[in-house]
Amino acid sequence: MFEFLHKKINETIDITDEQFEYAKTLFVPKQLGKKRLLLERGNTCIYTTFVGKGLLRSFTIDEKGNENILQFAMEGWWVGDLYSFLTDEASEYTIEALEDSQLLLITKPSWDLLLEKVPAFERYFRVLIQNNLIATQRRLMNTMTISAEERYIKLLQDFPDISQRVPQHMIASYIGVTRETLSRLRSQMASG
Amino acid sequence: MFEFLHKKINETIDITDEQFEYAKTLFVPKQLGKKRLLLERGNTCIYTTFVGKGLLRSFTIDEKGNENILQFAMEGWWVGDLYSFLTDEASEYTIEALEDSQLLLITKPSWDLLLEKVPAFERYFRVLIQNNLIATQRRLMNTMTISAEERYIKLLQDFPDISQRVPQHMIASYIGVTRETLSRLRSQMASG
Repeated sequence: MFEFLHKKINETIDITDEQFEYAKTLFVPKQLGKKRLLLERGNTCIYTTFVGKGLLRSFTIDEKGNENILQFAMEGWWVGDLYSFLTDEASEYTIEALEDSQLLLITKPSWDLLLEKVPAFERYFRVLIQNNLIATQRRLMNTMTISAEERYIKLLQDFPDISQRVPQHMIASYIGVTRETLSRLRSQMASG
Repeated sequence: MFEFLHKKINETIDITDEQFEYAKTLFVPKQLGKKRLLLERGNTCIYTTFVGKGLLRSFTIDEKGNENILQFAMEGWWVGDLYSFLTDEASEYTIEALEDSQLLLITKPSWDLLLEKVPAFERYFRVLIQNNLIATQRRLMNTMTISAEERYIKLLQDFPDISQRVPQHMIASYIGVTRETLSRLRSQMASG
């Protein structure tokens, strides 16, 4: 799993083997079974997490009990509640494994140490967060401006295997429609 | 205006006077009159921009001619289309001054140079982008989960003087409702 992390980091920054060996000492590997929680709302998000294998989702639950999905995180992605992680405040998010997952966890003190000792990681996380911001801005504008059908098509373009890996009602939640609307969209697209 | 930039930078990172003097050489000051454009969609966003004074907005225009506002940027904020700036691709956004504004512009090559010569700026921009991501995620979830009235109240909390500085139809666009709905909300809140 560390090799995969090393490969992903190397796509963005150059670090020496020695620097990576140091970085490795700051991560905690964790196996998380399907349906198990990495974070439950009301708790502080004390880790930011690299997904080595598997799939997770982060979501809120509104007053009516509806789940609203912020993110799906697959192999090679990071997941966490950035605000809670940075401020130590209780999180509004729950993070759940949708498949058996292999994770690398890093606490805030270790993350601070990593940035201090290997400043190239400032660049790595800046680029990571920057790409996340671009994707989130795009999703926000799409939510405001394009139809549910177009949002569904964009989701399939970004995650071609999502229909095989994520239950339909979660996909519906992610694009902001009811399960019935998604089902109708899928029928229309299959017959069109 | 450079003093204001220096102050804002110092809130996040420590840089020497010598480093700031170097940074200054990479920025281009610009005055932009009210209703003038900093970026017009279809063009590449060749600058990222610090707002020293004034107020701008970035927005897209959909097929029906509706404007959809991504961001208002006031004194001390940055504005630009990050994706276009980083990739050199044409932007979907237009950026317009809503007040006479004083700006500091930096091109991508100068920005790269700044990050290379003064690596502390990696941290500065990482923190800046991180805060923007947290705000954008929150707005996305709010768009999906809470009522227009609550979104309007949150906007007033974040920007107490926005009603004095931004036309109502733009505020309506930002929270994703029609002008009529916003007008009704405001009456209800005034009478409630």
